[in-house]
Amino acid sequence: MKIYFDNIATTKIHPEVYKFMLPCLGENYGNPESLHFFGDESKSTIESSRSNIAQLINSKPEEIIFTSSGTEANNLAVKGVAEACLSIGKHLITSSIEHFSVHHPFKRLEKLGYEVTYLPVDRCGLVNPDDVRKSLRKDTILVSVMHANNEIGSIQPIEEISRVVKENSKAYFHTDAVQSVGYLDVDINKMGVDLLSISAHKFYGPKGVGALYVRKGTRMLPLIEGGVQENGRRAGTHNVPGIAGMGKAVEILKEKREEWATHLISLRDALVKGITNLVEKVHFTGHPQKRLPGHVSLCVEFIEGESMLMLLSAKGIAAASGSTCTSKALRASHVLTALALPAEIIQGSLVLSLSPDNHSSEIEYFLKVFPEIVSRLRNMSPLYTKYLKEKGV
Amino acid sequence: MKIYFDNIATTKIHPEVYKFMLPCLGENYGNPESLHFFGDESKSTIESSRSNIAQLINSKPEEIIFTSSGTEANNLAVKGVAEACLSIGKHLITSSIEHFSVHHPFKRLEKLGYEVTYLPVDRCGLVNPDDVRKSLRKDTILVSVMHANNEIGSIQPIEEISRVVKENSKAYFHTDAVQSVGYLDVDINKMGVDLLSISAHKFYGPKGVGALYVRKGTRMLPLIEGGVQENGRRAGTHNVPGIAGMGKAVEILKEKREEWATHLISLRDALVKGITNLVEKVHFTGHPQKRLPGHVSLCVEFIEGESMLMLLSAKGIAAASGSTCTSKALRASHVLTALALPAEIIQGSLVLSLSPDNHSSEIEYFLKVFPEIVSRLRNMSPLYTKYLKEKGV
Repeated sequence: MKIYFDNIATTKIHPEVYKFMLPCLGENYGNPESLHFFGDESKSTIESSRSNIAQLINSKPEEIIFTSSGTEANNLAVKGVAEACLSIGKHLITSSIEHFSVHHPFKRLEKLGYEVTYLPVDRCGLVNPDDVRKSLRKDTILVSVMHANNEIGSIQPIEEISRVVKENSKAYFHTDAVQSVGYLDVDINKMGVDLLSISAHKFYGPKGVGALYVRKGTRMLPLIEGGVQENGRRAGTHNVPGIAGMGKAVEILKEKREEWATHLISLRDALVKGITNLVEKVHFTGHPQKRLPGHVSLCVEFIEGESMLMLLSAKGIAAASGSTCTSKALRASHVLTALALPAEIIQGSLVLSLSPDNHSSEIEYFLKVFPEIVSRLRNMSPLYTKYLKEKGV
Repeated sequence: MKIYFDNIATTKIHPEVYKFMLPCLGENYGNPESLHFFGDESKSTIESSRSNIAQLINSKPEEIIFTSSGTEANNLAVKGVAEACLSIGKHLITSSIEHFSVHHPFKRLEKLGYEVTYLPVDRCGLVNPDDVRKSLRKDTILVSVMHANNEIGSIQPIEEISRVVKENSKAYFHTDAVQSVGYLDVDINKMGVDLLSISAHKFYGPKGVGALYVRKGTRMLPLIEGGVQENGRRAGTHNVPGIAGMGKAVEILKEKREEWATHLISLRDALVKGITNLVEKVHFTGHPQKRLPGHVSLCVEFIEGESMLMLLSAKGIAAASGSTCTSKALRASHVLTALALPAEIIQGSLVLSLSPDNHSSEIEYFLKVFPEIVSRLRNMSPLYTKYLKEKGV
């Protein structure tokens, strides 16, 4: 049995997306910027994908910039706005639990002389809009707070934060919606954002393609330059098959999202309930309700996340620990640290992220296997032995 | 009949490359950074592609950084080195006929306080290594001169330029080999370069993937950051299918390159000979011998490149004018301007770039159609009427 519970890292490509991409890998190989018939087909593929995405998030097609990933979209948003608005101000605000593709650009900007305020989060991982209000200054040019967190699943109060930003400053507001676009209602007007990052391979699309929504009139310099593509905001020959696949994935998503979410919530709740009943000393992280539908995150006391992953993998179950995109780099996750969890608890982090393809038999199998794995690892743990002794077992 | 003579813009994907990519778009969907079995397959796909590329250009695998395009590779090389070496110096050298993905980053760096020397080229589009020598300064940190030009096909004396750079400075030497890798012997040690840019879709690989060779020890900051991928030098989930395709395309290339080049040279020479015989007042651009094997570039007097493209397209022939990646942006090509050609000649620019798939019947068809198109357009040209009058016809 092979079970994939690591959909925050990447989803598989939907069979319809796959089929839709094939002609762009075959006979429709034109460069969309060419002035001849070979380019026309590619051009129209790209523009129809752009329209699909715009429709999904309620923007205009010309406000969508294609990138190579959510990571590039985040880098472009943060660094592109900061550099373009340098003459207006040098103050930036972000949360302390952003994905590294937002966090590292801010760190880089600090080295270049910008000043960054990192907002704390509460125990559920939520930013307080009041903290945003207090941090805003006359020279604040950008606020970036993610929509839903990859490690703990929490959904930020984006609308409220946006209201605070717009009522109290002229700063742009960016949100990293990489984890949410496949599962939540993402509407740039309801959310009140100026920039929003998307990644195709988080919702049944291919790897190697993402997009950045940029509200008309937003000042932003390009990160990758030297071509007329994307109105000069992102150069480089378009990844036509990737963009085609992203457009198709969005089309499917528009139709299926709500149905998927219902299914995911029922699987998620069954997992949480099962783990709670079967394993003691487990701390679920993130917000219990305001969270991604298919996202379960927890810390298992006395053991290490990496060991759990290895044993789960041996049983055919793929899962994650800490920030999955960079799980190899992590010792102590900055997200879990921001929740003020003790270090010895953080190390037992586990993230199970479901896709609409998962079904209840997989949840049952996991719940059969997981308690055995926890026991096996705890039996090797001196801390657990100490705990049992203190408990008088 | 549909004839594709625009291979500098993009080639088609080789059928074997296509086949090789499919599993990565299907069941092998793991994220290579994951710590479980789903990631293993993707990881090994990426590393085997990296080894193929390294072998092709005679580098070590760990010196290859995957990017989303040749454009990104060029941006990363120029901006990444400039920013990393800021404390050493602020002087940069490049040629005046670089692709915009090199040229624009230099322009951006000028705005940031760097000083750039733009080297002239001779009438064949070649940089004089002596000019490089004279331009080198103690604070020169980077020299970037392309291997082969996209618009005029000329091949630069990279080895000599490299020798001059290395003997007279501590500057790094970068070359944009996007147009050459599929057709010339590209060996980083023979060439003596520290950085070298590649794009997969110029040699039967897919769009959306490129690579930058970076010699061990070279100081360079990332452009896209926030992940451990590529040793922290380029963040973002790997485009696994794209990278797989690039690796396969390189494998085919290694075996076929010389055979292809012979075929291309014979087609190219037939085209040049035919055009020379059939159309008067034509100026071939670039170096007559030191040029890409399948590359024909010319300026046709009295008419406009864009009109030629339209009429050729109507006859089923796809070609380019000026810099193809950005043909829509161009009024007067900076490359042709650098050759000191008069403006009225430049506007009649035409680029025919062949692939190994082209055959002699296509050349014959072109030579049948082209003179008629030129006549038709010239008959509408007041300049041509004036010329005929002066000639006494």
